[in-house]
Amino acid sequence: MRQEDPVATSAEADAMRRAVALSARALGATAPNPVVGCVILDAAGRVAGEGWHQRAGGPHAEVHALLAAGERARGGTALVTLEPCNHTGRTGPCAQALIEAGVARVVYAVADPSPVASGGARTLRDAGLDVAGGLLADEAAAVNTAWLTSVRRGRPHVRWKYAATLDGRIAAADGSSRWITSSEARADVHRLRAEADAVVVGSGTLLADDPHLAVRGIDGVTQPLRVVVDTRARTTAGARVLDDAAPTLIAVGEDADTAHLAGVDVVRLPYAPQGRGIDVAALLAELLARGVRAVLLEGGPTLAGAFVAAGYVDAVTAYLAPALLGAGPAALDGGGISTIAQALRLDVTGVDRLGPDLRLTAVPVAAAAAVVSAAAPADVPTAPQES
Amino acid sequence: MRQEDPVATSAEADAMRRAVALSARALGATAPNPVVGCVILDAAGRVAGEGWHQRAGGPHAEVHALLAAGERARGGTALVTLEPCNHTGRTGPCAQALIEAGVARVVYAVADPSPVASGGARTLRDAGLDVAGGLLADEAAAVNTAWLTSVRRGRPHVRWKYAATLDGRIAAADGSSRWITSSEARADVHRLRAEADAVVVGSGTLLADDPHLAVRGIDGVTQPLRVVVDTRARTTAGARVLDDAAPTLIAVGEDADTAHLAGVDVVRLPYAPQGRGIDVAALLAELLARGVRAVLLEGGPTLAGAFVAAGYVDAVTAYLAPALLGAGPAALDGGGISTIAQALRLDVTGVDRLGPDLRLTAVPVAAAAAVVSAAAPADVPTAPQES
Ligand SMILES: NC(=O)c1ccc[n+]([C@@H]2O[C@H](COP(=O)([O-])OP(=O)(O)OC[C@H]3O[C@@H](n4cnc5c(N)ncnc54)[C@H](OP(=O)(O)O)[C@@H]3O)[C@@H](O)[C@H]2O)c1
Ligand SMILES: NC(=O)c1ccc[n+]([C@@H]2O[C@H](COP(=O)([O-])OP(=O)(O)OC[C@H]3O[C@@H](n4cnc5c(N)ncnc54)[C@H](OP(=O)(O)O)[C@@H]3O)[C@@H](O)[C@H]2O)c1
Repeated sequence: MRQEDPVATSAEADAMRRAVALSARALGATAPNPVVGCVILDAAGRVAGEGWHQRAGGPHAEVHALLAAGERARGGTALVTLEPCNHTGRTGPCAQALIEAGVARVVYAVADPSPVASGGARTLRDAGLDVAGGLLADEAAAVNTAWLTSVRRGRPHVRWKYAATLDGRIAAADGSSRWITSSEARADVHRLRAEADAVVVGSGTLLADDPHLAVRGIDGVTQPLRVVVDTRARTTAGARVLDDAAPTLIAVGEDADTAHLAGVDVVRLPYAPQGRGIDVAALLAELLARGVRAVLLEGGPTLAGAFVAAGYVDAVTAYLAPALLGAGPAALDGGGISTIAQALRLDVTGVDRLGPDLRLTAVPVAAAAAVVSAAAPADVPTAPQES
Repeated sequence: MRQEDPVATSAEADAMRRAVALSARALGATAPNPVVGCVILDAAGRVAGEGWHQRAGGPHAEVHALLAAGERARGGTALVTLEPCNHTGRTGPCAQALIEAGVARVVYAVADPSPVASGGARTLRDAGLDVAGGLLADEAAAVNTAWLTSVRRGRPHVRWKYAATLDGRIAAADGSSRWITSSEARADVHRLRAEADAVVVGSGTLLADDPHLAVRGIDGVTQPLRVVVDTRARTTAGARVLDDAAPTLIAVGEDADTAHLAGVDVVRLPYAPQGRGIDVAALLAELLARGVRAVLLEGGPTLAGAFVAAGYVDAVTAYLAPALLGAGPAALDGGGISTIAQALRLDVTGVDRLGPDLRLTAVPVAAAAAVVSAAAPADVPTAPQES
């Protein structure tokens, strides 16, 4: 924190922790916006109101929290997980709302990296408010990773998910794969889908498994866009992915015959400059244009290989079943890696047991460093987490 | 514990825990004997002496502990991780030694399952000692798993170890594999070797890697027997495995030409009844006959497949590097499994981080059940772990 900013009090740190938790509730529901949480403390440091950005087009977190706090916001402190916005979007700038409510101090976690919205902190300071940034920045950035990545990279964040045996097989020699992992692991996949804006599979998976790809078992969920990367439009009209449980997009090659897909949302994309199928960069650009910030890539191994080769895998969730097969397709097929020095090295960010299985989460080594630098931009020094 | 046996005191439980820890010190050094630890409490329940079986041919744990306790053993209690032996081996029966030392009570963890040695408990009871079995049986059996398995199955215990990427590759497309895992993981492999009586690789690994297979970096270690399964005797006289750092056995086919291996310990074994190479059952029988109880199978994938197919993998240690390759050989190749229902299911017994890597230990689901039943044989009820 800057010299002139008082360090955060422990009440402020607690409130920010709460705001981060609130922000996470809306993962998968706010695209193209970030998830944001806000807690207002009154002048005496007691919680006066809280809120979070619940869905795109709805009020921002600060507006919810100010509404809840009412007059108690006057002279108080707002804890926000992301620097308040300065631009007049669908719901008006939050910086202005905070000023008008008479808030005396604003502490945010992560600086807003998007050019259109940035500058909220300056506006608040210019209006005489006490402003500090960086409190619990890592925690807040972790929840907002998909959105931050999409802003920084100009493409959606991609989490590759797969389920494999300990020896790295996703199916047995005869192609059977139901079920490699436990019901606990499979339920967790629905949580991942719920937190994503789009779920993507290749035509190989579609034809082999006829997957449904919608979220089941989670109430009030915003269904992700189901996307099939299907160069030759081999998806049939009866595919389960075409039911009305969630929106669906079939990405086909420029000259694919799509007569059998009348009424289906189809997008024509250029072919990959090298390798097979559709250009994955064009696919991600199309998804970004449609407001997708968080992609869950559900495979299969061939499409995942294309994403790895293009450097588009930002996070990996591996469900490992403690089982051996000794034959059958590998979890990842392709990626353009021919020697050990080129291996895509990851940092393990989590290891959890789900029933008999393990869930490993990991991020590419380079990406791990980038998230940290995003969380604590050079011009907003990180605050100590306790006073 | 039986009705007539008093339950263990908490001092006894502590002493047994210590005895189990002592027993583990000699893993890899006692074959063909089990590892055994012993703590003697004096009549007042204070620790009077402790010891463990340090190497085959050396004194048994009870003898070491009685020597340390001296006169304080009289009227005291002996805590032993394995039922004291009753037979006159190289060092005389331990049951007799305990009786002569005037010990009043003997508590053991695991009943001796080997026909030749069993009966120690009865001998002690007949001599008027108070005898109880089953205290910390699971913990003691876990340390002695290799020996217990070898007695129960009539073949050495086999731990398959491999190092792979998250997508199950043990080398890149060009065959390079140095190094997939970290130095921490590689150091841990030396610990596994030190705890084994034999380290086994196939000719493929020998020819590809020219591995050394001896233990490095652990003082005072008993080197395991290095074993190469090399049907056609393709091992050359200059192979690193043939240096004098540890004993080495080359297992060849019955009619292999071994003229170039003069002076090398070579054993001729029958061919596999089906599939390729040498009959792995014959290999394990040969190793058992040479006193090997704990085999560390270090691969490669083809030989591991043969062990899996034969049902000879009793435990798995997987070092998983958080890296993706997308191409290259899989950790396990073969095993006779063609459909998902036949998958070799494991129970994960441990997940640890070693530097950036993960170490997973697991046992086949059936074997997990067998170890428990060995720890608590039907005729020796399990004692409560605390009084
Ligand atoms: N266990 C798991 O986590 C999991 C997850 C998913 C799938 N699976 C299994 O994976 C198997 C299917 O694997 P798969 O590799 O064949 O399927 P896939 O990766 O889902 O689909 C591959 C296909 O996608 C199309 N594609 C379009 N653009 C592409 C591009 N840029 N790069 C690569 N492919 C592109 C290609 O076919 P066209 O060009 O002809 O369209 C390609 O053959 C099934 O057995 C399924 O059960 C397992
Ligand atoms: N990352 C790791 O953990 C690890 C560990 C070990 C090896 N590796 C890698 O694995 C690769 C070698 O793999 P590999 O599969 O070729 O080697 P392998 O499993 O060590 O050796 C296989 C060979 O063993 C012989 N063999 C004898 N009896 C056999 C039987 N009953 N069943 C199967 N094979 C029998 C066969 O050749 P003959 O009949 O001609 O003798 C067979 O080709 C190397 O690249 C090495 O670096 C990796």
